[in-house]
Amino acid sequence: MLSRLFKSATPEAAAPAPDGRSRAVVDAVLPVVDGGRFAVKRVAGEAVRITAHVFTDGHDVPRVMLHWWKDGSERRHELPMKLRYNDEWHAEFTPPVPGRYVYTVSAWVDTFESWRHELIRRVDADDIRLAARTGAQEIRAAAERASGEERDALSGWASALEEGAADAKMDATTLKALALDEAFAETAARHPDRRLESYFAAELPLVADRERARFSTWYELFPRSAGDTPGEHGTFRDVEKRLPLIAAMGFDVLYFPPIHPIGRLQRKGRNNALVTEPGDVGSPWAIGAAEGGHKDILPELGTPEDFRHLVRTAGQLGIDIAMDIAFQCAPDHPYVKAHPQWFRWRPDNTVQYAENPPKKYQDIYPFNFESTDWQGLWAELKSVLDHWIGEGVTVFRVDNPHTKSFAFWEWAITEVKRAHPEIIFLAEAFTRPKVMHRLAKLGYSQSYTYFTWRNTKEELTEYFTELTQGPGKEYFRPNVWPNTPDILHAALQTGEEPVYKARLVLAATLSASYGMYGPAFDLMEYKPRGPSSEEYLDSEKYQLRHWDWSAEQGLRPFIARINHIRRANDALQSDHTLKFLHIDNDQLIAYMKVSPDGDRAVVTVVNLDPHHTQIGWLHLDPSEIGVPSDRPFQMHDLLSDQRFMWRGSHHYIELDPHRLPAHVMAVRRRVRDERDFDYYA
Amino acid sequence: MLSRLFKSATPEAAAPAPDGRSRAVVDAVLPVVDGGRFAVKRVAGEAVRITAHVFTDGHDVPRVMLHWWKDGSERRHELPMKLRYNDEWHAEFTPPVPGRYVYTVSAWVDTFESWRHELIRRVDADDIRLAARTGAQEIRAAAERASGEERDALSGWASALEEGAADAKMDATTLKALALDEAFAETAARHPDRRLESYFAAELPLVADRERARFSTWYELFPRSAGDTPGEHGTFRDVEKRLPLIAAMGFDVLYFPPIHPIGRLQRKGRNNALVTEPGDVGSPWAIGAAEGGHKDILPELGTPEDFRHLVRTAGQLGIDIAMDIAFQCAPDHPYVKAHPQWFRWRPDNTVQYAENPPKKYQDIYPFNFESTDWQGLWAELKSVLDHWIGEGVTVFRVDNPHTKSFAFWEWAITEVKRAHPEIIFLAEAFTRPKVMHRLAKLGYSQSYTYFTWRNTKEELTEYFTELTQGPGKEYFRPNVWPNTPDILHAALQTGEEPVYKARLVLAATLSASYGMYGPAFDLMEYKPRGPSSEEYLDSEKYQLRHWDWSAEQGLRPFIARINHIRRANDALQSDHTLKFLHIDNDQLIAYMKVSPDGDRAVVTVVNLDPHHTQIGWLHLDPSEIGVPSDRPFQMHDLLSDQRFMWRGSHHYIELDPHRLPAHVMAVRRRVRDERDFDYYA
Repeated sequence: MLSRLFKSATPEAAAPAPDGRSRAVVDAVLPVVDGGRFAVKRVAGEAVRITAHVFTDGHDVPRVMLHWWKDGSERRHELPMKLRYNDEWHAEFTPPVPGRYVYTVSAWVDTFESWRHELIRRVDADDIRLAARTGAQEIRAAAERASGEERDALSGWASALEEGAADAKMDATTLKALALDEAFAETAARHPDRRLESYFAAELPLVADRERARFSTWYELFPRSAGDTPGEHGTFRDVEKRLPLIAAMGFDVLYFPPIHPIGRLQRKGRNNALVTEPGDVGSPWAIGAAEGGHKDILPELGTPEDFRHLVRTAGQLGIDIAMDIAFQCAPDHPYVKAHPQWFRWRPDNTVQYAENPPKKYQDIYPFNFESTDWQGLWAELKSVLDHWIGEGVTVFRVDNPHTKSFAFWEWAITEVKRAHPEIIFLAEAFTRPKVMHRLAKLGYSQSYTYFTWRNTKEELTEYFTELTQGPGKEYFRPNVWPNTPDILHAALQTGEEPVYKARLVLAATLSASYGMYGPAFDLMEYKPRGPSSEEYLDSEKYQLRHWDWSAEQGLRPFIARINHIRRANDALQSDHTLKFLHIDNDQLIAYMKVSPDGDRAVVTVVNLDPHHTQIGWLHLDPSEIGVPSDRPFQMHDLLSDQRFMWRGSHHYIELDPHRLPAHVMAVRRRVRDERDFDYYA
Repeated sequence: MLSRLFKSATPEAAAPAPDGRSRAVVDAVLPVVDGGRFAVKRVAGEAVRITAHVFTDGHDVPRVMLHWWKDGSERRHELPMKLRYNDEWHAEFTPPVPGRYVYTVSAWVDTFESWRHELIRRVDADDIRLAARTGAQEIRAAAERASGEERDALSGWASALEEGAADAKMDATTLKALALDEAFAETAARHPDRRLESYFAAELPLVADRERARFSTWYELFPRSAGDTPGEHGTFRDVEKRLPLIAAMGFDVLYFPPIHPIGRLQRKGRNNALVTEPGDVGSPWAIGAAEGGHKDILPELGTPEDFRHLVRTAGQLGIDIAMDIAFQCAPDHPYVKAHPQWFRWRPDNTVQYAENPPKKYQDIYPFNFESTDWQGLWAELKSVLDHWIGEGVTVFRVDNPHTKSFAFWEWAITEVKRAHPEIIFLAEAFTRPKVMHRLAKLGYSQSYTYFTWRNTKEELTEYFTELTQGPGKEYFRPNVWPNTPDILHAALQTGEEPVYKARLVLAATLSASYGMYGPAFDLMEYKPRGPSSEEYLDSEKYQLRHWDWSAEQGLRPFIARINHIRRANDALQSDHTLKFLHIDNDQLIAYMKVSPDGDRAVVTVVNLDPHHTQIGWLHLDPSEIGVPSDRPFQMHDLLSDQRFMWRGSHHYIELDPHRLPAHVMAVRRRVRDERDFDYYA
């Protein structure tokens, strides 16, 4: 079982035994991540564009093939690549269903096409006669490789060329025309001599996900605070009552913090107090108690059947339930007694709890990934994922994956997705950049980002340019959050509505995937635990809260509108086309995204100043959005429903944050004028 | 023999059998070319800086090692890498002699250092006592791995920590100090537990050349035109008479077109005429006749002993002789009869000559690299290289390498350099960019470039930025030529001295290696064969010429000065530091290079307009050249010997092309003023 990981981790050389006569060179097959060590990420049903540098010595013509197949399948697909320019060849394939795929490129020197290519330019009659005889030899060889009617056709063609070349009465122009016959050439091209075919040095892996891995809208809530009655522990049934509201707001992933039994030993009190008071419910991330561990449900939330029912109901509304995976144990987790070798023990015969001196987390025991029973530990942790998949879970949000071994994640995610390619993994790693990238490379479908701490125009521009254009774009899919239960950014701590709206629009339009820690955001909860704290005061992490769940409260109508715009405009559903636009005011940020086919553009402008109306001139060349430069075009603000008529490259922007801090504008290109009537044509 | 190529071409995985407990991640080892498929190029005796991204999960501390060795040697070197920032580690090694080297990086989680790192931050007395006991366990394990005095020292330290931890009278501060003892820690660090060491996925190759591969100055001449008497065929003895002049001009590579017997069949006449006249000497690239082939010398040039004598004499003047390798045959080359299977035969039983329809080169038969006897062909061609190395040749300039198989070159160059690592190969491939890069990757030490056709400020800036900063910088060493026997660029066809001088200064200061087709350049030969031709009229390629060889003729004193400046200023001897400077005039181009240690800068400004004085303001921030911004500094123009006093960031430039079209200025930082006197300190 484990050996599979290490096999798939090292791409095997695709080349057959080399022959010094193989003259075609295949280089720089793209996309690629670390030379094929990790998979490129794409979405099933969407075309993948592959490019390669291919050439040979001299003037001969190479023929180039793209090979792709579903990993593990015997059935290989092959399709011809086309020359674009500068020795760059390209082709596309579409992975039909989610799963792991492999591709590579091969090439050979096409002697028939090389001959034909030279013949086209020949003018001397003697040269043409001799070339016809050379060609006849090539065609006879092709006939040998063909069968049936094609073989006969090619043999006949070769004979005709030989006879024509020998017949002094046949003029060279006629002979050349016969030699360049298109239909015969197509037949010959179907039977090439591939004995000296060269392959690219590696077979490159690709993971095709379902679309939600690229485009998703997340809402986080604590089920225990989902009830109607203040002070009563919420249940899965309560959560079910919230589903219509969550669906109406346009969310498609609903994520819960851990739902397992919560440890009693070393339990934390309200606001992270070291001592509990009677009735304190503890942190859901302190997993495991007498009632069970990672495969069990906190009895106060309901039964396994309640959970399954909730998952089914959410599914009917198009919502995936995301489960929090926090691989750590409360001191009273059953694993501690059953598998003491999975933990680090100290000289005083106590288990090493999590700590980052002088900080201590006595309620959390990390696993020891250097355990002698590491194989048993890996298998058990993977069985946790398998258990919840069996219960209907389709998305995992993984807590602090960077504090568990990278090799484990690569193996576990690869194995889970081999059996269940539809599963999505989100990495909650707020840590150093290279560590976050490694997690994305080894298999996480989506990654939390630094968005929460990127607030100025310069910071946002630099960061999102890196995310969408940098080398990570092939494997790192950002999922941006304006807040989380752990992060109430200082900018939100004033509770001003324009800040919340601006951060929401930025998240929802800069990134195809975004999420919010729901009720705290949509009700604009803004009080921190202390003056320089990013923690929420009276955080749900440590106590029950009660929220107003009515649909019109707070930002909910605005959120619904934004998410509706995201669903209706495919330009906002992927990230690679993001382009920042120049606007001459540092408080205004402007950017554009276009649909995959390039036909539909959305331009967003956000006023980052929550207090003052800001004015600026936006530079947008109409040719960038397919509008002739002499034509007016309409910008339809999908937030306000206003329509602006623009012309030329410089456009006036004025945003009053107290009305609306942003424009999210669809470009309407077809503005008719009298020139559109037939009689002007 | 051949199998070696394919072995060295695929880097083998360096990793031992994987263990899921190995938690250190080694990624992005740089420099690298195509994931290790090809070698990085450096110079023996110069430090190579290696960087890697290394990290582990959680807060533990990794230890990182650079491993390097001479390819094929059993003796491996290992040295610790240091953390710079952002998980980037670095170290340097210096390949002592020319040859092929290999390097890779390994890392492991350092439990001792991780323990120490946490202990430093511990404040609670009980925590310190417990940590001392944990540390004692680590230290005892290290003692097991040590021997002799070190073992005893570590055991003693572990016991002291245990006793101190158990002794209620020992206060925690004292215990902590004992646990953090630096000398003991160094001893423990010498005996780490490396059982779970991880290796980077590849072993990366590096070719260390001698210095001339990076910094060289080439002069090309036709030996047959080296004589004193017009109309008489020059000889190697005549060339020997020119050596003092060539050395005085500062050249260190003297390159001859082919010196072999020249075919008589299909010989070309003067100015590439299809028919010869009596006495026509033919093109030296039509190699082979009754007198012999690629291992023989044209009798008119002299004897093998004459050649060896010339090579020796040149060597005494510090000049390498570069031999032209043109792997092609005249129709009367002995190979054609002896090895008919090395050529392509046409249906009329004639050999296929070189052609690019409708152009024909009947005097040249290319080799067929798809020959069934390709192994025999490869071996014979390599034996040509070996033969001339035996005759004292140290540099090969290879003619049109892109029309021979890439696999052959990779094998031949690798094999030649395995036995003779001092050999330098220059690729004369004026062809498409990716083909030129492939040749550089597979082993050519230097490459011809598009410099000849890059004339404007924009073209030069873009091209040299790509050459020196692009991905090719690890393997593609440019060698730039203002002219060659095949290229008399239109810009030179007016014969104006400022053009020649400007192109010379550009070549000599933009690129550490440059060359010229000598007498035609230094005597400013400028007449083309026809109005839109880049061919020289009455080209030496097809006839004898006679040149004035006196030292003061034409540009020779200017060339000597430029080459002297190159030798005296190490900033001009490598390319990676090239940086273009802003100057507000499109006819003025300015750039800077600094020495490898960053201490010595040379700033060059060239007036590209050969007719008018051009004036501009150059932007150069003194901090970029190590001068405090409030201090004046001196710019010493090494061409005119003028000295300019500059201050601040904007500097006035005025260049009259009829006096001198360029400044080549050394920065003199130490301008004393009264503040330098002691009593001001």
